[in-house]
Amino acid sequence: MNTLGKLFKITSFGESHGTIIGVVIDGCPPLLTIDQSFIQAQLNRRKPGQSNISTSRNEDDEFEILSGVFEQKSTGAPITIIIKNKDTRPEDYSKLKDIYRPSHADFTYQKKYGIRDYRGGGRSSARITAGWVAAGAIAKLFLAHFEIDITAYVKQVHQIAINKAYLSLNLQNIETNSVRCPDPETALLMQKAILEAKQEGDSLGGIAACIIKNCPIGLGEPLFDKLNAKLAQAVLSINAVKGIQFGEGFNSVLFKGSELNDAFIRKQNGETGTQSNYSGGIQGGISNGEIIYFETAFKPTATISKLQKTVDIEGNEHNLEASGRHDPCVLPRAVPIIEAMAALVLADCILLQKAYTL
Amino acid sequence: MNTLGKLFKITSFGESHGTIIGVVIDGCPPLLTIDQSFIQAQLNRRKPGQSNISTSRNEDDEFEILSGVFEQKSTGAPITIIIKNKDTRPEDYSKLKDIYRPSHADFTYQKKYGIRDYRGGGRSSARITAGWVAAGAIAKLFLAHFEIDITAYVKQVHQIAINKAYLSLNLQNIETNSVRCPDPETALLMQKAILEAKQEGDSLGGIAACIIKNCPIGLGEPLFDKLNAKLAQAVLSINAVKGIQFGEGFNSVLFKGSELNDAFIRKQNGETGTQSNYSGGIQGGISNGEIIYFETAFKPTATISKLQKTVDIEGNEHNLEASGRHDPCVLPRAVPIIEAMAALVLADCILLQKAYTL
Amino acid sequence: MNTLGKLFKITSFGESHGTIIGVVIDGCPPLLTIDQSFIQAQLNRRKPGQSNISTSRNEDDEFEILSGVFEQKSTGAPITIIIKNKDTRPEDYSKLKDIYRPSHADFTYQKKYGIRDYRGGGRSSARITAGWVAAGAIAKLFLAHFEIDITAYVKQVHQIAINKAYLSLNLQNIETNSVRCPDPETALLMQKAILEAKQEGDSLGGIAACIIKNCPIGLGEPLFDKLNAKLAQAVLSINAVKGIQFGEGFNSVLFKGSELNDAFIRKQNGETGTQSNYSGGIQGGISNGEIIYFETAFKPTATISKLQKTVDIEGNEHNLEASGRHDPCVLPRAVPIIEAMAALVLADCILLQKAYTL
Amino acid sequence: MNTLGKLFKITSFGESHGTIIGVVIDGCPPLLTIDQSFIQAQLNRRKPGQSNISTSRNEDDEFEILSGVFEQKSTGAPITIIIKNKDTRPEDYSKLKDIYRPSHADFTYQKKYGIRDYRGGGRSSARITAGWVAAGAIAKLFLAHFEIDITAYVKQVHQIAINKAYLSLNLQNIETNSVRCPDPETALLMQKAILEAKQEGDSLGGIAACIIKNCPIGLGEPLFDKLNAKLAQAVLSINAVKGIQFGEGFNSVLFKGSELNDAFIRKQNGETGTQSNYSGGIQGGISNGEIIYFETAFKPTATISKLQKTVDIEGNEHNLEASGRHDPCVLPRAVPIIEAMAALVLADCILLQKAYTL
Repeated sequence: MNTLGKLFKITSFGESHGTIIGVVIDGCPPLLTIDQSFIQAQLNRRKPGQSNISTSRNEDDEFEILSGVFEQKSTGAPITIIIKNKDTRPEDYSKLKDIYRPSHADFTYQKKYGIRDYRGGGRSSARITAGWVAAGAIAKLFLAHFEIDITAYVKQVHQIAINKAYLSLNLQNIETNSVRCPDPETALLMQKAILEAKQEGDSLGGIAACIIKNCPIGLGEPLFDKLNAKLAQAVLSINAVKGIQFGEGFNSVLFKGSELNDAFIRKQNGETGTQSNYSGGIQGGISNGEIIYFETAFKPTATISKLQKTVDIEGNEHNLEASGRHDPCVLPRAVPIIEAMAALVLADCILLQKAYTL
Repeated sequence: MNTLGKLFKITSFGESHGTIIGVVIDGCPPLLTIDQSFIQAQLNRRKPGQSNISTSRNEDDEFEILSGVFEQKSTGAPITIIIKNKDTRPEDYSKLKDIYRPSHADFTYQKKYGIRDYRGGGRSSARITAGWVAAGAIAKLFLAHFEIDITAYVKQVHQIAINKAYLSLNLQNIETNSVRCPDPETALLMQKAILEAKQEGDSLGGIAACIIKNCPIGLGEPLFDKLNAKLAQAVLSINAVKGIQFGEGFNSVLFKGSELNDAFIRKQNGETGTQSNYSGGIQGGISNGEIIYFETAFKPTATISKLQKTVDIEGNEHNLEASGRHDPCVLPRAVPIIEAMAALVLADCILLQKAYTL
Repeated sequence: MNTLGKLFKITSFGESHGTIIGVVIDGCPPLLTIDQSFIQAQLNRRKPGQSNISTSRNEDDEFEILSGVFEQKSTGAPITIIIKNKDTRPEDYSKLKDIYRPSHADFTYQKKYGIRDYRGGGRSSARITAGWVAAGAIAKLFLAHFEIDITAYVKQVHQIAINKAYLSLNLQNIETNSVRCPDPETALLMQKAILEAKQEGDSLGGIAACIIKNCPIGLGEPLFDKLNAKLAQAVLSINAVKGIQFGEGFNSVLFKGSELNDAFIRKQNGETGTQSNYSGGIQGGISNGEIIYFETAFKPTATISKLQKTVDIEGNEHNLEASGRHDPCVLPRAVPIIEAMAALVLADCILLQKAYTL
Repeated sequence: MNTLGKLFKITSFGESHGTIIGVVIDGCPPLLTIDQSFIQAQLNRRKPGQSNISTSRNEDDEFEILSGVFEQKSTGAPITIIIKNKDTRPEDYSKLKDIYRPSHADFTYQKKYGIRDYRGGGRSSARITAGWVAAGAIAKLFLAHFEIDITAYVKQVHQIAINKAYLSLNLQNIETNSVRCPDPETALLMQKAILEAKQEGDSLGGIAACIIKNCPIGLGEPLFDKLNAKLAQAVLSINAVKGIQFGEGFNSVLFKGSELNDAFIRKQNGETGTQSNYSGGIQGGISNGEIIYFETAFKPTATISKLQKTVDIEGNEHNLEASGRHDPCVLPRAVPIIEAMAALVLADCILLQKAYTL
């Protein structure tokens, strides 16, 4: 349900147009310095209204820590973070009260629970992920002790994709453009495509990549908490995600075993490593010390302004023209969310591995 | 770690070349009739040596129920199932004691645990999944009460893929050929490709599809136990899996929102449904009553006979020519494993949904 | 850690002298009417300053629901409740910054976490239980659908005990006196004893009893989530609790089997029940339909005004005269806390039993 | 249900008169030397037929390790242990098929599950605890690395109790007599009382004490996994337990705060400790470095030979004269079970504490 993780655990709460959204982190090790400006910086990467290609909802997403931090340090007690919803316009949604927006969760929530907070998607809104990003920022602060570095970026928007190997990209470029694509020329094309879709009242999907450097060997707990399985569960929790793949992923099937196997070699520093990294840094569900690489597919935003056919709660047919504010493409704002989920999973895995090391 | 599920829970145990492998099912509802021949039939679909395109290890995979079943019915107590390992040849592996097989879990297990049962992969072997299939068979017996039907098949092997819509396939054909492909002509090409790879001492990967019919609306527990997230975690636990995608999956990114959204309609029976099913039967992490469809990517089997470069536990370089028996392509035997994992997840979700319905 | 329950789950957060204390309820079934005045009434029974035998800290303990309730009904989403800390006097505690109060958690928290919020006990304060009472009130609203009735009361304070069978007590009297004892004469003696201890700057302990009526047969999940085991875990989480006993409890050892066994009989309504109820309504870890009865021992409040010897964080010896406000006897305010914990456990057990009933 | 623990987890399975009973340990750290003779020695302390005051059921309780141990060491994989049921006499129980034995779990299991394995109590039999003792033995091997020592003994049988302080007892005497009482004279009286009850066809209850030495400071995870709460849950899982108390327990209520508080002092070794230990080694739910002391109340064995009134599954009244073999007093054999549960809890707490230490 709303708790993720075994040791570094987060419990998510709140609705899009309620008073607040938030998160409780239970299991943050004590004595961690909680750098609030870092948390805010992560939230700012996710917040709405940051550019002309994101939703116009106006939220500054300032957070407040309600518990678990004393004199700037974690105490081992649960850390509660809330973010107030300021620019709520529940009235925008009153006409959606009984209507199911296509490819949203309106219908399934109504059927599952027999009730739903219809204002802006309520609990199913992507706004909830702000809490995850705040929690992920704390996980990142923890991971910094191990020098683990997690970087996501936009690899593809609709038909426009980076066609370079990820190792050749300059990841410093990611935050230099509104689309969070490390390849500047591709970024421009992506922005153009998104703006066109926005003008059409339409939306675009895309693929985000995530690169994790300096992950220690040994993270992941077979057989059912393999690192890739845990990452998959966490990332599939993000709204609009339709798939995940590790290393070569679906492309692996075009290789033969003799082509895809990563030969072990003695590296220059004397350590064992792999020559290639088709595995994407995870073997047998455990990190192998190489770069962890995975990709996530996002469908186009379900909310569009174009006219759509749908039915209401009584089964009557309607033509729906969505109001409410939304992103023409979620990818740029999904980047910090993916990083957060990866950070939460890695923090959990590190604690598990610490527990079991004699 | 080795327990999957919240209410319908399995705990997996055993090693490839130990005495047994097995599973405990804790949370099977009482009074379920345990049809042992059905369980055996599912195990037979997974067992080695079933055709000329599977490993020659000779295991009949007969199971034994040690607890939890009384007079052919579940009692609510844990159901323990074991399968003896008969055709063990630990001596095959003695020379692999200190050598890391490329793209296997030897290296990561050794580094993580400081020790490993090197015989046939030990705990990391795909042989362990036999227990999952047995447990999944019991989950299927439970799901049969709800008329839920889960069918997986091989959609692609290396470069050979079915190029028809899944709704047009005759799923009755799946078990008529050794490769478990519902399209007979494609099946022949796949078999040929696998045999060629086998002769070369090489291996192939592929894509399996899974279709779930009659799934009730409302399964899946947002935000972190969404149906797709739980399926992803369970399926990523299977050996050699490199990715999973739901509905249109990665292909979704090539659509615009207006093209991909599934319009709600009033169906002939008066119920609300969707006109298209690009979502793959899951919206907002909850089943919507349409067919659930997902695809899983498997890399080519890591064990190959061809010469490979690797290092041993001391970091010395070696040329490795693998002995030990293995599948040239895991897809055909992966089909019942995917179904088992899906069944376990759905059984868990049904129990959760029952719990929360006032 | 800070989450209790498997399906009806609460996550507790907050510190005694921080901004707020609170709770997230994850797993409250949807469509439950959330009667806010009932929640407040339960909190009022626990709040400080309610009589001359409770602490003088002035908190009205008004709660606020931040999420999970829409139009007065639960939605199935996490319900977050916070209670602001108003009458905080952290300065009272600044001199306790480095000193370990005897029989408090100061020392163990400092040693375990390497840091502690020393203001009023921080996370270890009984103030945290206000959140549990709020959550327990919602559990009670759920249990009301099953007509389950949970009533706790004070049975003994120091040497003053009710010496009547619990079935002969008039439970309506409980809320008529400040000590929450159903026997008015004993109540007076208890009040007198508590006031005397208060004047001495000392404190008293006691025993609370809890009676649960109309509990359906079949709650409790052997072998490790037996109803009594779950109640024990929940009740032992309350501050100052030193023991729990069910039915005849420790007194059982003075009976022989032939004396203590509860004979099964056919009751007047034709149902099977037991003639006596030495078992306290639980057999084999499962409710048997009789009244559930258990008792909880509380030690005297650790905070006293009398001079005590202790050491500081450096190991230097000190004479400590506690300031800070405290209860001379926690029993009266513990009554609603015990009821809350029992309600949370029963709600969890009901959901579990619903899940597993075919 | 049937899994206990968060990191050092056991899953229990099996029935009294089925093929086997057993346990899976998931979370035993790797590289632990598994001393099989030690495990057997612990099982021998619990096994039936060990003296004239225990049941005559003839089981040697030899165990078999099916997984998770390689070359005498744990590998980090699940450790499965089974114990065969040899001296099963299901026919003894056929006449109990439809009859509820008073104060047994027959009635509650039948009502909860709608089915039960009636042979010797099936899943509710104390025989199941053999698996716990085997798992507890492995936990003890782990705890030995920390020099933690857990010793339980019989303090009281019916009206015969040791009336000496526990610190004055010679614990070496425990295993010198069949009743496991460290005071030889009391032991003789206990034996006599048990034999008398046996001859009468009756049974006795009693109190077991448990002493844990060298427990490091800091174990226990507030607020809901406090060390005492976890011990309570684990110990209440044992058959026939009716109560648990820590330190002075219920007796605490007869003290005033000024009398019961444990003053902190600087010990001779310079470390901080407490002068007295009324807290029983746990403060705020966390071990404080002093001796942990708790007591457990067991009711008299429910199975007796004396004639009893009861009803059958149809509600018809019967006079029951129990056959089946049983202990006239469970206390002597409960001693190793309590130690096992305490060991499992401490192992879990140590792993948790390791995880969270930066």
